[in-house]
Amino acid sequence: MPETVEIGLGRSARRGYHLDDIALVPTRRTRGQAAVSTSWQIDAHAFDLPFVAAPSDAVVSPASAVEIERLGGLAVLDGEGIWCRYEDADAELSGLTDETGRLQEVYAKPVSPDLLRARIAGLRTAGVRVAVRLSPQHTAELAPHALAEGVDLLVIQGTVISAEHVLREDQPGLNLKTFIADLDVPVLVGGVTNYQTALHLMRTGAAGVIIGYGAHLGSTTHSVLGIEVPMATALVDAAAARRDYLDETGGRYVHLVAYGDLATGADIAKALACGADAVMLGEPLASATEAPGHGLYWDATASHPRVPRSAIVDFADGDPHRPTLEELLVGPTSDPSGERNLFGAVRRVMGKCGYSTVKEFQKAELIVTTTR
Amino acid sequence: MPETVEIGLGRSARRGYHLDDIALVPTRRTRGQAAVSTSWQIDAHAFDLPFVAAPSDAVVSPASAVEIERLGGLAVLDGEGIWCRYEDADAELSGLTDETGRLQEVYAKPVSPDLLRARIAGLRTAGVRVAVRLSPQHTAELAPHALAEGVDLLVIQGTVISAEHVLREDQPGLNLKTFIADLDVPVLVGGVTNYQTALHLMRTGAAGVIIGYGAHLGSTTHSVLGIEVPMATALVDAAAARRDYLDETGGRYVHLVAYGDLATGADIAKALACGADAVMLGEPLASATEAPGHGLYWDATASHPRVPRSAIVDFADGDPHRPTLEELLVGPTSDPSGERNLFGAVRRVMGKCGYSTVKEFQKAELIVTTTR
Amino acid sequence: MPETVEIGLGRSARRGYHLDDIALVPTRRTRGQAAVSTSWQIDAHAFDLPFVAAPSDAVVSPASAVEIERLGGLAVLDGEGIWCRYEDADAELSGLTDETGRLQEVYAKPVSPDLLRARIAGLRTAGVRVAVRLSPQHTAELAPHALAEGVDLLVIQGTVISAEHVLREDQPGLNLKTFIADLDVPVLVGGVTNYQTALHLMRTGAAGVIIGYGAHLGSTTHSVLGIEVPMATALVDAAAARRDYLDETGGRYVHLVAYGDLATGADIAKALACGADAVMLGEPLASATEAPGHGLYWDATASHPRVPRSAIVDFADGDPHRPTLEELLVGPTSDPSGERNLFGAVRRVMGKCGYSTVKEFQKAELIVTTTR
Amino acid sequence: MPETVEIGLGRSARRGYHLDDIALVPTRRTRGQAAVSTSWQIDAHAFDLPFVAAPSDAVVSPASAVEIERLGGLAVLDGEGIWCRYEDADAELSGLTDETGRLQEVYAKPVSPDLLRARIAGLRTAGVRVAVRLSPQHTAELAPHALAEGVDLLVIQGTVISAEHVLREDQPGLNLKTFIADLDVPVLVGGVTNYQTALHLMRTGAAGVIIGYGAHLGSTTHSVLGIEVPMATALVDAAAARRDYLDETGGRYVHLVAYGDLATGADIAKALACGADAVMLGEPLASATEAPGHGLYWDATASHPRVPRSAIVDFADGDPHRPTLEELLVGPTSDPSGERNLFGAVRRVMGKCGYSTVKEFQKAELIVTTTR
Repeated sequence: MPETVEIGLGRSARRGYHLDDIALVPTRRTRGQAAVSTSWQIDAHAFDLPFVAAPSDAVVSPASAVEIERLGGLAVLDGEGIWCRYEDADAELSGLTDETGRLQEVYAKPVSPDLLRARIAGLRTAGVRVAVRLSPQHTAELAPHALAEGVDLLVIQGTVISAEHVLREDQPGLNLKTFIADLDVPVLVGGVTNYQTALHLMRTGAAGVIIGYGAHLGSTTHSVLGIEVPMATALVDAAAARRDYLDETGGRYVHLVAYGDLATGADIAKALACGADAVMLGEPLASATEAPGHGLYWDATASHPRVPRSAIVDFADGDPHRPTLEELLVGPTSDPSGERNLFGAVRRVMGKCGYSTVKEFQKAELIVTTTR
Repeated sequence: MPETVEIGLGRSARRGYHLDDIALVPTRRTRGQAAVSTSWQIDAHAFDLPFVAAPSDAVVSPASAVEIERLGGLAVLDGEGIWCRYEDADAELSGLTDETGRLQEVYAKPVSPDLLRARIAGLRTAGVRVAVRLSPQHTAELAPHALAEGVDLLVIQGTVISAEHVLREDQPGLNLKTFIADLDVPVLVGGVTNYQTALHLMRTGAAGVIIGYGAHLGSTTHSVLGIEVPMATALVDAAAARRDYLDETGGRYVHLVAYGDLATGADIAKALACGADAVMLGEPLASATEAPGHGLYWDATASHPRVPRSAIVDFADGDPHRPTLEELLVGPTSDPSGERNLFGAVRRVMGKCGYSTVKEFQKAELIVTTTR
Repeated sequence: MPETVEIGLGRSARRGYHLDDIALVPTRRTRGQAAVSTSWQIDAHAFDLPFVAAPSDAVVSPASAVEIERLGGLAVLDGEGIWCRYEDADAELSGLTDETGRLQEVYAKPVSPDLLRARIAGLRTAGVRVAVRLSPQHTAELAPHALAEGVDLLVIQGTVISAEHVLREDQPGLNLKTFIADLDVPVLVGGVTNYQTALHLMRTGAAGVIIGYGAHLGSTTHSVLGIEVPMATALVDAAAARRDYLDETGGRYVHLVAYGDLATGADIAKALACGADAVMLGEPLASATEAPGHGLYWDATASHPRVPRSAIVDFADGDPHRPTLEELLVGPTSDPSGERNLFGAVRRVMGKCGYSTVKEFQKAELIVTTTR
Repeated sequence: MPETVEIGLGRSARRGYHLDDIALVPTRRTRGQAAVSTSWQIDAHAFDLPFVAAPSDAVVSPASAVEIERLGGLAVLDGEGIWCRYEDADAELSGLTDETGRLQEVYAKPVSPDLLRARIAGLRTAGVRVAVRLSPQHTAELAPHALAEGVDLLVIQGTVISAEHVLREDQPGLNLKTFIADLDVPVLVGGVTNYQTALHLMRTGAAGVIIGYGAHLGSTTHSVLGIEVPMATALVDAAAARRDYLDETGGRYVHLVAYGDLATGADIAKALACGADAVMLGEPLASATEAPGHGLYWDATASHPRVPRSAIVDFADGDPHRPTLEELLVGPTSDPSGERNLFGAVRRVMGKCGYSTVKEFQKAELIVTTTR
């Protein structure tokens, strides 16, 4: 039974837990690094790291995607981002500041289906596995272009989505259930924040469901909309949906990709321990020398023309010693903050807790550490 | 059963929840903006926004009331404010600083019933619906003047009021039960903080009850008096009183107007989801270019001659780019803080949670997000 | 049953609540100021305010005691303080800074029984009711001097005391039970933090028990010793002891004096609502123009020669507009912080909650407001 | 039954309590200082203080070990620290800054078994009891050298260890069970964070188990690995393991040494009250004039070549009045922060709670003080 409290007469609410509210408890035998694997396989695609780079123009460019593939992860290009709106995307990126108004102007230019196809073609030529993100609103229009050019994974992602969207009374929106079922490529879909929506999206035939909407330091969604996802609870609930769907289908396993509140190796480890198969990272990569945002971070919600829901955050902040993606993802590092060598840290804590694989690590013991 | 804890041997206390303690959970199908309405109707008066501007001289002037009406809300003029004490109110307003002592001096001048009538007449001439606030202490004296001039809505409001006030032993104060019952205009009455008082005030025949006393950044009531209203709990309790009163009367619906802890679109959305029909906003409008307080905010408790209970807060703070009321209320904006385009955000989150009207949205699922 | 949690396998702990964790809920009819009384009577002594000035050399001098009596309170002179160690106490007080080392030096000079008698004689001459504080360690030696000179109330007070003190194995310390029982003057005794000790001290025949040890901004007892008194719980527990002792004795009422975590009118009101009959205030008076500490505050624990447990705090801080004791205690004020016109605020909230006397106000409804 | 909450559907987690979450409650008779003893005896070794100096090069040098012994404690030299890597250790120590990169370089030089033996010989010549720390990874290699030279206590310590370590599949690591059982000297082993591992390590025949991994201001283990030890819960759980092991063995008592979250006298007192027999202190000694780190503090995790898990913290910070070890440990002091005269404070609170010995003090009453 979920934990509920009565917030007033006759009205109950569940209590949600953030990753910051919990910690890992080493309780079994310990394992050395050589006895631990962080590998991840979704559909036909295998990766050394349980890691997807978020479809933010601040971190994934055609160039950085190549480096991310080399380091063992999967980069998702935003199919509605600057790269698919401007021929000379770098020029636009160089002109950005931390002003939301400027961002709104840049993203006011329409997406070019031709540029989208050209970007995909470029990635295929570079030899990397191609993942592209589209918003639910534009999937019907843009997905045919992406699919025609050949993508390995399609990501259909908005802040909060549902399997059933109503545009206006008696006018349904995109039906993800039939749309995804008809596709040949595996689909990641989200963000999702609760059991019920997760289960409904699993039933669309998606290969994976994204839990959370990438809430990060700059996110103001909790202040603008009042929606907040306690990530530990959201992941545990989605894992329950996965179990129920496994039972319902006699064995179809849907991946959970955590997206939000992930800044350190500790955060990633806790997300995996709560049931995630992989994590989607945006902000933690923004300070990389290879990041196309030159140290700034923003996501799709920051450029909304009427109700922007993220601030632009400067993660470089004039630092002359910005790390490489390699230092950030697999180390080594001399930075003890937890924000670098993210997956070196994950591998280490998996060993300290006695687990060999990510799947086993999903059973790690947890403790609630915030009594305050 | 309300959630109680034993704070010591033999003494229990309920646990109250603030709006900051909860968040909205999108769980049903999502809806597009065109399928969502934020309209509000109280008595014979319909508004595009579920919004009342608080009777603070810092935000409601005869001039700003016109703009607030145009944008879809209802402005309440303080019938005991500067506009009803001084002919040249603007001169007084221009001379204010953040010193409480100066405020006490300005408000020491008595209210002029003639000026009160003149202000009401001016508003009627301007073609806006007229709402005037009086304190319970002066309602008996001033209400006849206001009613004679013609008001659309009378607001009887103090920090904390009750249906039964005792001036001294064996000398009752204003009896709201008979006073309101005898009036022909609809009455909003408050502030109220709990089930029992809300129910008693509903029984006076009031059209609406104000929940909370407008606690905001500058409010020090919690430090001066030790009274604090966890708004989520207060609204849920008042909604329970409304249900019980509906049953008791066989269908008389009393509106709940939330007043306090409302700074962002998120706060407003959560207040509605807790049972409010509309919100009363003061502080969030203080930075508007049209605000008569020139960026300062104070309410009636700030000028109390012996025990002031609010500091004066400067919301403009030298900002050369103060927003218009239009940007604050309905956008668009490039500010991602949640403090602008308040009702654009509300409409959006209603859609993300799958609701078409404010009344339906009062059933939205809530989650407690502060385990800390 | 007290609320307990299991902090680990087989070990339980109660959960304690601070005054900051709770708030007052106005739920009954409201009352005007004229219908409210804050008077307090202990033994034969009646006071307009439920207020004792703490035996700190920073706030109580022979001169300030006269003003405190005039304003309606009871001042307690520290019988082991500077006034009883130095003929020219003012000279010593003027030389103090915020250095604990200097304080240790000043208090290293022994107490003079002759000076103690002279100070008491001076107060009697000035026509105020005389209360003197002695530590449990020196009560046996100094009390005869104080009693011979004539005190109206004796205060036996240490940080944490018990009815039974063991100096070393098989060598008991002062037996408060027989000592207090033999006295003719009423005795206030404390500090106490729990039900059991409160009950034992009530059985000594004390007129009142002090709950808490005056923890304030400067106090570091929680860091030095690990002792911390959640004041709301401590008062509620002591009130339970008072009820049980009333039953046990067939009607002997022992007063509870709250001492600690009291900075504002709100804090005082909550302490009364938790069961206190009066409050002991030190720090909140330190900024007064009449305070002998010239704006600095310290208590007896700050001068301990080996383990000081309070820092010296500067409450004047160069402020050219320091308040009078009158403004601090009974107002009026233009300061909305809650730190001035303390008992004006208490009277007001008693009215808003509908109570006429402090004794009735001890039943006020409480709400826990910190879910965080 | 341990206190658990459901963090999501079908997933429970215990709730852990930090030392900061609890406080001591004086409830029995009080005792004077002369009636209290803080002595500690482990195996054949008796100490005036229940205190072990942590094996950090920042606080334990051959010279400071002599002073620590004189003051009543036990110093542990890091057998893999700078003193066992460099002939002229002082030169290396003088060159350190707060840069982790520099630390990694200094610790990159291999440990010299000959230097290890020479340091031990030096300590024996100085007449102090010799305790040396080795990591589990290097115990097999280095312990024979240490034992041959003669140590009084061997400390086998890593961040998180287990009785059973797996290097890689089918290749076990050091078996502590047989290793410790075969030794003639008493062994302290840790860090441990939970009941089960504590019980398993007790069964190795260790004389004492270290609870915690020394988390301190500079520690980032919680951010890097997601492991965090709520110390109060960890100690209470380990004390439960001790009870069960006492029963299982018919009377073999294993000591618990708390290591982590210990900055003040209060922290130490609470750790003892939760079941610790002694505390291991590193950081609190770093500011001492005798500290070899010149005011900087770091531990073994700060120099990890790939994943450092502590920052280097400057505790001297240019302070011209750094305390001596004597002032820090046994006073007197004029510092009221709780960070000096640590064991003078412990002795005092033991008396205030009415206990004569550390063993009795383990039963002191506790209260949870953080409802927030």
